[in-house]
Amino acid sequence: MVKLAQNRYGKSRVRLLKVTRHEGHHHVDEWTVEVLLQGDFISAHVEGDNSKILPTDTMKNTVYYMAHRSSATSMEQFAEELIDFLLSRNPQVLAAEVTVHSALWKHMKVDGSLHPTAFIRGSDEQQTTHVVRHQPGGFQVTSGLSNLVIMKTAKSGFEDYIVDELTTLKPTSDRIFATACTATWKYIHAAPLHYNQLRERARETMLHTFAGHESKSVQQTLYAMGEAVLEAVTEISEITLTMPNKHALLVDLDRFGMKNNNEIFVPTDEPHGTIQATLVRM
Amino acid sequence: MVKLAQNRYGKSRVRLLKVTRHEGHHHVDEWTVEVLLQGDFISAHVEGDNSKILPTDTMKNTVYYMAHRSSATSMEQFAEELIDFLLSRNPQVLAAEVTVHSALWKHMKVDGSLHPTAFIRGSDEQQTTHVVRHQPGGFQVTSGLSNLVIMKTAKSGFEDYIVDELTTLKPTSDRIFATACTATWKYIHAAPLHYNQLRERARETMLHTFAGHESKSVQQTLYAMGEAVLEAVTEISEITLTMPNKHALLVDLDRFGMKNNNEIFVPTDEPHGTIQATLVRM
Amino acid sequence: MVKLAQNRYGKSRVRLLKVTRHEGHHHVDEWTVEVLLQGDFISAHVEGDNSKILPTDTMKNTVYYMAHRSSATSMEQFAEELIDFLLSRNPQVLAAEVTVHSALWKHMKVDGSLHPTAFIRGSDEQQTTHVVRHQPGGFQVTSGLSNLVIMKTAKSGFEDYIVDELTTLKPTSDRIFATACTATWKYIHAAPLHYNQLRERARETMLHTFAGHESKSVQQTLYAMGEAVLEAVTEISEITLTMPNKHALLVDLDRFGMKNNNEIFVPTDEPHGTIQATLVRM
Amino acid sequence: MVKLAQNRYGKSRVRLLKVTRHEGHHHVDEWTVEVLLQGDFISAHVEGDNSKILPTDTMKNTVYYMAHRSSATSMEQFAEELIDFLLSRNPQVLAAEVTVHSALWKHMKVDGSLHPTAFIRGSDEQQTTHVVRHQPGGFQVTSGLSNLVIMKTAKSGFEDYIVDELTTLKPTSDRIFATACTATWKYIHAAPLHYNQLRERARETMLHTFAGHESKSVQQTLYAMGEAVLEAVTEISEITLTMPNKHALLVDLDRFGMKNNNEIFVPTDEPHGTIQATLVRM
Repeated sequence: MVKLAQNRYGKSRVRLLKVTRHEGHHHVDEWTVEVLLQGDFISAHVEGDNSKILPTDTMKNTVYYMAHRSSATSMEQFAEELIDFLLSRNPQVLAAEVTVHSALWKHMKVDGSLHPTAFIRGSDEQQTTHVVRHQPGGFQVTSGLSNLVIMKTAKSGFEDYIVDELTTLKPTSDRIFATACTATWKYIHAAPLHYNQLRERARETMLHTFAGHESKSVQQTLYAMGEAVLEAVTEISEITLTMPNKHALLVDLDRFGMKNNNEIFVPTDEPHGTIQATLVRM
Repeated sequence: MVKLAQNRYGKSRVRLLKVTRHEGHHHVDEWTVEVLLQGDFISAHVEGDNSKILPTDTMKNTVYYMAHRSSATSMEQFAEELIDFLLSRNPQVLAAEVTVHSALWKHMKVDGSLHPTAFIRGSDEQQTTHVVRHQPGGFQVTSGLSNLVIMKTAKSGFEDYIVDELTTLKPTSDRIFATACTATWKYIHAAPLHYNQLRERARETMLHTFAGHESKSVQQTLYAMGEAVLEAVTEISEITLTMPNKHALLVDLDRFGMKNNNEIFVPTDEPHGTIQATLVRM
Repeated sequence: MVKLAQNRYGKSRVRLLKVTRHEGHHHVDEWTVEVLLQGDFISAHVEGDNSKILPTDTMKNTVYYMAHRSSATSMEQFAEELIDFLLSRNPQVLAAEVTVHSALWKHMKVDGSLHPTAFIRGSDEQQTTHVVRHQPGGFQVTSGLSNLVIMKTAKSGFEDYIVDELTTLKPTSDRIFATACTATWKYIHAAPLHYNQLRERARETMLHTFAGHESKSVQQTLYAMGEAVLEAVTEISEITLTMPNKHALLVDLDRFGMKNNNEIFVPTDEPHGTIQATLVRM
Repeated sequence: MVKLAQNRYGKSRVRLLKVTRHEGHHHVDEWTVEVLLQGDFISAHVEGDNSKILPTDTMKNTVYYMAHRSSATSMEQFAEELIDFLLSRNPQVLAAEVTVHSALWKHMKVDGSLHPTAFIRGSDEQQTTHVVRHQPGGFQVTSGLSNLVIMKTAKSGFEDYIVDELTTLKPTSDRIFATACTATWKYIHAAPLHYNQLRERARETMLHTFAGHESKSVQQTLYAMGEAVLEAVTEISEITLTMPNKHALLVDLDRFGMKNNNEIFVPTDEPHGTIQATLVRM
């Protein structure tokens, strides 16, 4: 005998460009949205009965419909509105979750000032949110960022680790520390929050800590970054950081009669270290 | 106050090509391995004390060392050996997990027969396994496959779903059903298993069911595939399937005075439906 | 003063899935088409006068329109039909070029036989063609393949090369030879050709030669493959092969007291050798 | 009979991170280098005679060796040094070409000022150069940029194009114009040039023109951008621009009783327009 233990379905990679036409300048948001529903869909799975199924195509339409109607000032708030809309109309749905990834567009700098209607793409860093609500129940909001590619060329070493007969790594008090940081943080959800401001404060705290830290390991720096965010943003209850160690290998120039004073490196994508931790407010 | 709730670290994307040189023919395995350790690493995070830290570089070396020593006949067994080796030498480690992705190489067909030492890459489908062991404790083995790209051009429809004022999708009794299936299944772990055989049986059962199913929805076909695997492979306790609905859109040729008899489609990558379910043996 | 020296424009990544519904089984083609036009478009560039501009959106529509009308049995022939259609209706166009990339779908094997309407994706190898015609003039057809990923574990060495003070490579008489071959060949265009057959013969000749060759370098094997194609397919006047040398590095296990008998390798993507040559029939 | 018409070989994707340690701050360059040689390599191709072959592994070493020795202030100059070094030592080589792609790292902004040793990745725009020298002969330097992702939300329309029975596009005087621009320009090579300055001027001229242009088509804007560069940088003799038209489709909200005032769009990657032109100084 077989049982349906869990199921969810929805629409992924719904892309949205919203142009807000202010007097004198435009604002653009480029979001990629995912909508997933959980609920009592056993008859659909077992019998092919679609009578409780809201088509994923309709979910896509709903994203655009809500994007037009919404006056949300953050993607977290947009996700909440979308979830409320879907849950209120679909009693067969037990939980709705919405994920939004936001791409970075900046006003183009032209002749020293920002152009009102021309834009240039920023880095591949993405701002993210994942919002879920069970019916009945409140929102759980987990925001974050991904692909924050950062590097420090000072104040990073790795020494005094375990040495055994399979060790070939050499200890160093001065190495390149490069990573593509992913962070997700959970909000304590008591009242409406200024998500954009909190996000900005969390992000700046991470950068500040990364830059200044006297790093003895990726673990230690990651922990310091998470701790600093929890201290700086009291609305956050928990943060998870994943920081691959994207190794920059020192080139052996001794072979050619040269001394490589920590100057010439080979940046590599694979293999890479993976360091991950979750810190919680006690 | 802040607490380290969870942490793990290790090495990702350790690539390995193993050539087994049999008399008269060669066999190749191309694996990408990830090793992650959990344990009592608070001092590393808080104080930068690396005395309990096995470097990720050493984990990489260990993969190659074990690859040479091992006589494992499956990647699941190799993962188990690697975990046992790491745990036995590192009491500070509470759990080790190893993930292996295997790429597909086939002997090249030359003049009608398989060449013993020339190979051609197969599809981008990957065979996967994730094995974890807590100290003390036994192995949990979750195997699977990803990017199994399949399509059926008959026996698929989608009708009788919810229609509301945001519905624009037209019902159809004959559509293209294309997906890139990801599956993971957990083994009931009583005794050593013939992992390669079980994997092959699970995979063939999925294909058989997909091809023959009279599909009223992705959900229904997905459920039928999972149910069939649980029936065919009694060593599996649970299976999770994720099947994006990669829409092939019927081109509107009416505009040009033509009738499109389900013949000309636009295959699309985004947006796509996402259908996911877990089935368990009761 | 500035002059418009060259220009072309068109539509890229027009994706097409064509299902041919034979009695008892279906056939599928998945093509990605690019259409580019050259012509007298100075007024569009200099003055913004679009009166001679066929919109790229219309080119896209034309691809689908022609896909429905066409009875072409090869993508080369389809490209020719598309070009003729566009040139006959647009006298302002001096040349039209069409590129088609074809993805590999195979009938799924179910219970030992091929299923008539279920398909499984093959490798990421692509079959390609580029066809161009100037007005007036005949077709130039250049077909080929890309991402033919192949490997040989025997009959490959690299020795007796230049050694200088920057040399660190060790000569070897037995190495892994792995590549992702791209080939393009030009047809002598006298009469309608059986493109699919010729393509198959060229491809099999390349594989046959690669597998059997006693390789002293990528260059030598590449040349042998090109020479064999020109001998086997007299309709081809010229062939260009590009074969990156995707290095599989022998792991140094001496450090761990082991002997690596050409068994354990690290496959790498970067850096890679690049070997390219064009062979012509004299 | 078969002839070797053309050949070249070398090393691709040689990655280099160079840290220049100034007093008080560091500077980083991340380059990906390709080195290709042409020459009299017939014996290597036909006979497997490697006596004239400089291994690609040695080319890779040479890149790192030169990176340490070089005091080049631009990647163009570094490419020239590398070519001179290779040609002077290898008389069998008739031409050497070096391509460099540079990634964007910026000093991290921390507490309002730029941190001296912490960096953050910029956009995926790449600065590029391709330098070639035949033996004997001078350098040909072609520099450029790729993946300059830009968008304008005003001053762009597309009207008065050819309309036929396959036209479905609607004319518009106000559309989104989004592209990922690739540009390459050739330098008139009389004397050593300040490549970084010229590059910056060319790039700013392109942005300035794109932002301000009253665009009637991608062609017209592309031409204006190229013309402006040729006017602003007299050291450039020729420029080629490729600007895909990455369509942002207006969502039809009429279906839901709403009016979409050019506000809600679907950004798309495929299909896309392709517009390409070369402008020369007369």
